[in-house]
Formats: sequence, structure tokens, C-alpha cells
Amino acid sequence: MEDIQNHRDYRNIDIDQVGVKGISYPITVLDKDMGEQQTVALINMYVNLPRYYKGTHMSRFVEILNEHSRRISLQNFTVILKEMKERLTAQSARMEIRFPYFIKKAAPVTGAEGLMEYKCTFKGTLVERPDLVIMINVPISTLCPCSKEISDYGAHNQRGEVKVQVRFKKFVWLEDLIKLVEESASSEVYSVLKREDEKFVTEKAYRNPMFVEDIVREIALKLEGDPNITWFSVESENFESIHNHSAYAYVEKHKI
Amino acid sequence: MEDIQNHRDYRNIDIDQVGVKGISYPITVLDKDMGEQQTVALINMYVNLPRYYKGTHMSRFVEILNEHSRRISLQNFTVILKEMKERLTAQSARMEIRFPYFIKKAAPVTGAEGLMEYKCTFKGTLVERPDLVIMINVPISTLCPCSKEISDYGAHNQRGEVKVQVRFKKFVWLEDLIKLVEESASSEVYSVLKREDEKFVTEKAYRNPMFVEDIVREIALKLEGDPNITWFSVESENFESIHNHSAYAYVEKHKI
Amino acid sequence: MEDIQNHRDYRNIDIDQVGVKGISYPITVLDKDMGEQQTVALINMYVNLPRYYKGTHMSRFVEILNEHSRRISLQNFTVILKEMKERLTAQSARMEIRFPYFIKKAAPVTGAEGLMEYKCTFKGTLVERPDLVIMINVPISTLCPCSKEISDYGAHNQRGEVKVQVRFKKFVWLEDLIKLVEESASSEVYSVLKREDEKFVTEKAYRNPMFVEDIVREIALKLEGDPNITWFSVESENFESIHNHSAYAYVEKHKI
Amino acid sequence: MEDIQNHRDYRNIDIDQVGVKGISYPITVLDKDMGEQQTVALINMYVNLPRYYKGTHMSRFVEILNEHSRRISLQNFTVILKEMKERLTAQSARMEIRFPYFIKKAAPVTGAEGLMEYKCTFKGTLVERPDLVIMINVPISTLCPCSKEISDYGAHNQRGEVKVQVRFKKFVWLEDLIKLVEESASSEVYSVLKREDEKFVTEKAYRNPMFVEDIVREIALKLEGDPNITWFSVESENFESIHNHSAYAYVEKHKI
Repeated sequence: MEDIQNHRDYRNIDIDQVGVKGISYPITVLDKDMGEQQTVALINMYVNLPRYYKGTHMSRFVEILNEHSRRISLQNFTVILKEMKERLTAQSARMEIRFPYFIKKAAPVTGAEGLMEYKCTFKGTLVERPDLVIMINVPISTLCPCSKEISDYGAHNQRGEVKVQVRFKKFVWLEDLIKLVEESASSEVYSVLKREDEKFVTEKAYRNPMFVEDIVREIALKLEGDPNITWFSVESENFESIHNHSAYAYVEKHKI
Repeated sequence: MEDIQNHRDYRNIDIDQVGVKGISYPITVLDKDMGEQQTVALINMYVNLPRYYKGTHMSRFVEILNEHSRRISLQNFTVILKEMKERLTAQSARMEIRFPYFIKKAAPVTGAEGLMEYKCTFKGTLVERPDLVIMINVPISTLCPCSKEISDYGAHNQRGEVKVQVRFKKFVWLEDLIKLVEESASSEVYSVLKREDEKFVTEKAYRNPMFVEDIVREIALKLEGDPNITWFSVESENFESIHNHSAYAYVEKHKI
Repeated sequence: MEDIQNHRDYRNIDIDQVGVKGISYPITVLDKDMGEQQTVALINMYVNLPRYYKGTHMSRFVEILNEHSRRISLQNFTVILKEMKERLTAQSARMEIRFPYFIKKAAPVTGAEGLMEYKCTFKGTLVERPDLVIMINVPISTLCPCSKEISDYGAHNQRGEVKVQVRFKKFVWLEDLIKLVEESASSEVYSVLKREDEKFVTEKAYRNPMFVEDIVREIALKLEGDPNITWFSVESENFESIHNHSAYAYVEKHKI
Repeated sequence: MEDIQNHRDYRNIDIDQVGVKGISYPITVLDKDMGEQQTVALINMYVNLPRYYKGTHMSRFVEILNEHSRRISLQNFTVILKEMKERLTAQSARMEIRFPYFIKKAAPVTGAEGLMEYKCTFKGTLVERPDLVIMINVPISTLCPCSKEISDYGAHNQRGEVKVQVRFKKFVWLEDLIKLVEESASSEVYSVLKREDEKFVTEKAYRNPMFVEDIVREIALKLEGDPNITWFSVESENFESIHNHSAYAYVEKHKI
């Protein structure tokens, strides 16, 4: 059978990324407490395509995925990128995987346990050396300093979502990144809260009013102080309880 | 050219609904204050298909839409449904249109004006007599009665979304339905709030703590008392600021 | 501490459903080939609330979920519903769980294996007797009979999605429902296809042109003939390759 | 009342972007054929915040939006950005607006008219000089060259979506960008097609097989040849009819 993809192309245009997008796939990721954890990822895999080839071989991406028998981690991310480069005879490879990650979390007073979900993304590119980025989405609670200051009682508060991306020197636990973010909000968000816990988080938030600007600054401050982090971006979105739109802030920093 | 759709089908199965789904279309709707308002709708149009026909004629749905030159309202909804029945020689026709609807709203103290968006849906079926349903999504603010009661200061609050559906005897203004919902929450949600306004909504919410259960009951009470409403359902979802999931309540009532 | 939820309510309105919505949770489901499979579900849990109570106890829903230690199946669905009724002293309980389900599938000619994802939903209500519904979303490929008939060469085709819901007498394997749907399309959809496989599915689709109407009728015919199925609905949506909207058909049938 | 936002901040962290996100707003945009067109946009507005300020003034963003009384265009985009800088005493301002844009399009043989929707985005940043980017999403139809070559009859085809972003020297009509993309696919996508038209598009697609790689190269070639375009990126995603994932390609080019 004819291999159309291998035909010569004469348009003289290099393609930066070509591949498969939106593959839903069960994966196993490392877990600080339990060794590992099974979850479901959404995966994109791309390579470059030099100007003289007509097309890439799409089925090979999924074959590579299958051969790693669902075990995908920061550790073997670079191995997979290398295989993509080799099997598709490319100069660069890129993979993005996004998955929900679960952590057992105890309520602050009663210790009642529940599972919290955090959306996590690993993104990696390999040309000569691998460039890996971890992204984590963390739900938080914020209480408005202005509302507290000007009101005789109460203060509007709301759920927010923080998105942190980092480049790093050595392995980073998702658990540690998440903890860093949760400790930088007016209050944390929980899966199960009994009445004593609800009193605790309500009062804690009221004592710690923070603008969306404060959230990103607190987190940026901590990431700046961590020598293992070489680059970061921090985004915070507050789903304002008094508006039908969000308040948003973004900070990015190359450290080296 | 052969008209395959008109071929005889021998499987003996009536199809309840067949047609086009997900058409994005600019429409003009009636507006209580400004006469009319232009917006963009997502439209589904279906008819039934008797067992002896192989297929319906999909292009006719879009032609009917085009002929109404973008002017779609509760008033001519039934006219369009009739045309669908006739032009597609069907016994029943159904149309659903969903669109953002905008209302100018003044901040409670300063009167600063802003535009609020409300997602609105018209759903109609015509067999013998038309059956029309209006659905409106209204963002609100809720403050937790339990959190207020047990905490020494503050109370968790959050944005919520109420979804009201009604069947009715005579015309209903979207504006009136929206107002009814907004007055049934801990506080309303606004587009622009200056500091004086923020103080007002913060304190108002604190004085009016409501569970998600209270929201649906308050609205149900008002709809029960309105003789023009013959059926309703009320749904409220609170995007809890202390959890990463929602609190939810639902009430439905056939009045006649 | 005051239990506000237990306060008496005087508005005289029963609430049909109240509870938690949108909980992301890792679950284990039965798997015909591998015994069981771990995936991630989106879960809603509701009970009714009689008119004389002010509120339900939201944290108990998540506690019940936690106690079933992530093992959720059609088998213990009713057990969970019973617990919800008891622990929340309710007359009715409802749970909906939606999760991606993975099945290993071999390419039609080369046998190259890949994992296919199918979105699955279990929905159950318990008043006196349990009422369970299984819903499965299956991607398919459809080729237009009209386009094939009137064109000198080629025929437009596209991906479609079929949504089947069933009520049943005894246990139903997801695998069997999925197979029934996949065999009712112009061609099946695969995760990995080598060139020989691509030739096979291309030619198969061309030999089996089907309207969206044909898809729902073929499936309805098979479900009607299955004595284990007591009720079903079949929905098919074609993401038309020649339009920017979908073609859609729906059939529903109470058999008993 | 205290202006908390104006308080001094001591954390020494500049914030790159802070503002409002996800505002739904009716806007009027220029239309090549009809003068102008009313649609509904999703809007984000951000400014930078120097390290010594605690917070920005969120309500001013919406006030600026309101003052432009819904009339937003490429022409006055820079004016709005300037106002944002001034009113929020910032060094940089950024706005992103995304809206559906409608164009009347005639079927290729019968000339039957329908409205096509194209998602359009304007993104602009102003520090010293404005930097504007237009993004347009165009639905297309693609037919696989490999499938056509190796199969005895037929060829799999599907809807795809092309996303083009451009920087430019002088004004660019959305209509012209869209036309350029539509002419670079296996076939165009239409709102209404009669049988003669369906025959035309089916046969046209079969005569013009194109990989996702071909699509981005054809478009890149044309944009490279247009001296008015100073930078572009082209992305194409094919919703494969034989897979449950997409084929994807991306090209980007700085021309000057």
C-alpha cells in the first residue's frame, strides 16, 4: 500500500507541531502517601514535521502510549518524548497530559476525612534537553478585604481557583505545591466539614481577608524563595459572589 | 436526483424527534424597556418522523429559520412550530432556543449602571396545541445561615445560580421572572458596584442568610401565588465557597 | 452548637431533591474482561426534604460516599440509596454518577490494540423500589446515504455520538450495550488503525450508508427484541462534516 | 470610606495582569457587507499593578466598557486600552474579546442562503505602542488523502476547525481572513445545502484530499505572501470520523 505520508512536499513549510489531540486515557501517577494512584488523563502528543515530508504517522503516537501500559509520570515523561522523536524521526516532541489528582484531606477540627480533587497538568517538550512544566489547579476560598473594612458586619467571600505552573531542578511533589497554595488563601476548601469545622473555616477566612492580588503575591513570594523552582507563573481567579464575572490576577517570573 | 429520504422504511419504528441541533443564530427578542434586543441563540429544531419514511429533510429546518429573518419571540414561536409541522409533513414539532439576555441594572446605592446577562431558554412543542416553557438562569448571592449562627464573626457566602422554568396562561416578561428570583436571595448580583454599594450588598446578605433550600422555597411560594403560572420548576445551585462541589435543591409543581 | 437545619419550616413546601452536586471522585467499577477497573466519576446525590424541615445535612452525603471506599457498582447502587434515605431520614433518594469507561479494542484487520473511552452514567432513584437507568455514550462513524446516492464519487461521512439509556430486569454489561451500538453504525470508531485497517473502515462505511434516523432505528430494533430491557431511549447526534451544526434523532420506548 | 486598594504593599511583587474576567456583553462590530453587526462578547480586561499598591479598582473596568456604549471594534480597541491605562494609572493594559460573527453565505450550486457563524477574538496589549492580534475560528471539511488512496471506494472525511491568528499593518476584514481559510480546505462548510449542493461539496472534497498538515501549510503559504500580515499562527484540528480523538497541526511565523 502506498505511504502517502512519506511523499515529498514542495511547499517549503516546516510544521511546528503535528499529532494527536484529546485522547482520553487511564494512567497511573505517583502518590506521596499511597505510592501510586490511578486516574484518567486527557492527552495531546505532537512532533515537528520538516518541510520535505507530506505527513506524519498518527497511529504511532497511540502505539507509544499503549506501550507504556498506562504508567505515566514525571520520571518517564522524558523517556516517552524521546521515543516520540525516534519513532517519528522528528527533531522535537511535545506531550501534554491533564488529569484529576486526589488527596485525602482531614477537616480542620473534627479530622473528618474526605477526598479533594485537584486538576493537574504535565507539559513537556524535548528538542535537545527536556523542558518540563507542572501545572496544578487548586480551589481556594477568598474573603474581600475591602468588603470587610467598609461593612458593619459580614464580608463577601467566594470560591476561587489558583493555577500555578512551575519549572524545577529536581522532582516536585504535587502534594507540596498544593499545600503551598492552600496555605496562601483566606481559607482552604474541604470535601467534608462538620459544624465545628464550618465555624473554624468561616472565622479563619474572616480573619484573613485577601484580594486576588494578595493570593498571587503570597504564592509568588514562596515560589521565589524556593531554590528548586527555576520559573513560575501564578494565576488566581475569584468567582465573585457579588458579581457575575471573575476577579483575576497573574504573575510570572523567570528566576535564572 | 433521487430523494432517498422519501424512500419507504420497513423497520416499523416511529421516530419521536429528528432534526438539526446546535445552530448558532443571531435573533431579535422583545425587551420590556427598549422594545427589542439583538442577541445570539443556540437553536435545536425537531419534528417526528412516522415509521414509513426513511428520513426527514434537514435543510428545510434552516430555511424556515432564515425566513423568519432572525425575529424570534414567544409570540411567533407557535407560528414557527406550525410551519415546521407543515413543511416537513409532521405530526409534532419542537424547538428550543437558548440565548443570553441583557438587562440594565443600577447599583443599589450609587445607582451606577451596568448590564447584567441572564441565560434564557424558550422551549416549545406543538402537536395539537402549543406547549411553551420559559427557562431563565439567574445568578444570585447566598449566605449560609448555619455558618452565620455558629461563627463568632463572618459567614461563608457564594455565588449561586437559580434556574426557573414556567408554563403560563398569557405572556410573561423575562424581566418580571428575573426580578422575582433576584428578590428571593440573600443578595442580588451586580455588574458594577462602587464602595457604598459593596457595603450595602455585604450587609444585606449578612442580614438575610439563606440555605439553597430557602431559595427554592421562596421562589416556589411566589410562583404558586401567581395565577398566570400553570406549572413551574425551580432549581438552585450554590457554588459553595468552603467546598469544591455545589449544594443543590429542586422543586417542581403542576398547579392545575 | 445550634442545628439550624433541624429548625421547623413554615412555608409548607416539600422539596423534591436536595443534596450535593458535582463531586469528583475516584471509583472502581466492574469490568467484563478484567474484573474491575478504576476510573473517576462526577457524582450528584439528592434526597427529598419534607415541608416541616428547614434544611438537609449536606456533609452526610459525602460521608456515605467515603464509607463505600470508592467501590461503586450497579450492584451496590441500591445499598447506597438506602443508606441515603436512612441517614438523612428521607422518603426518596437519588444518585447520578458519570464516568469514563475504557475497553481494549482491536483494529479490524491488523488486530492492533488500543483503549476506547465510553462515557457512562448510572442514575438511580429509590422510593419504595429502586429505579435504575444505565446511560452509555458511544462514538460512531456515519456515512450519508443521500450524499452517496447523488454523487459520482465519494460520500460525506463524520463522527457521531449515540446516547442509549436503558431500564432492565437483571444486570447488564456495559460492554454488551456498547457492542450493540457499534454494530449499528456505518462503521465503528477505533483508537489505533494501521493502513490496512483504515482501508477496511473506509470501505465498510461506504458500503453501509446510514442516516441519523437509521442509526436510532437499528438500535431501537435490537433493544425491542431484548426481553431483559424494559425501557429504552436512543439518541444519535451526527457532527455533520458539511455543516457547522448536528443532525439529531431520538426514539424512546416503554415496553411494559 | 477607607480605600484599601490604595494601601501600600510591602511584598515587593509587581503583578503582570489584574482585572476582570468573563464579562458577557453585547457589542457592535464592523461588518464588510452590512456596515455593522450586533453580537455578544465574552470580555477580559487587565492592567499591570506596580509592587507598591495593594490592589486595583475593579469597578473601573466595567465603567470603561459601559462608556463605550457597546461599540467595540479594531479601530477603537487602542482607545479603550489607553483609557484603561489612564483611569487605572497603569503602565500596561490588555483586553481580550471573543464573539460569534455571522456571515451570509450562499450554497455553491443553488445559491440558497444561510448564516454561518465564526468565532472571532480580538486581543490587544498596550504598553508604549499597541499590539493587536485577530483570531478567527473557521469550520472546514477535510478528506483524508491516505484513506482515498488505499481504499477501493470512498474516503473518510470529517469536520475540522482552523484557528488563525494574525498581527497586521493596517485593518484586516474578518471576511477576507475567513475566505482565505475556507478556500484552503477539502471543501467548505455551509448552513443550508440542497441536494445539488450536497453533490457538489461531496465531489469537491473527494477531488481535494488534504491532511491536517496540508491545511496549515496552504494557509501559511497564503499568509506568508500577504505583505500586510507581520506575524501569524495557524492551527488545524480534524475531528477524525474514524477515531475518537483529533488530528492536529500547528505552524507559527514571525515575518519581520
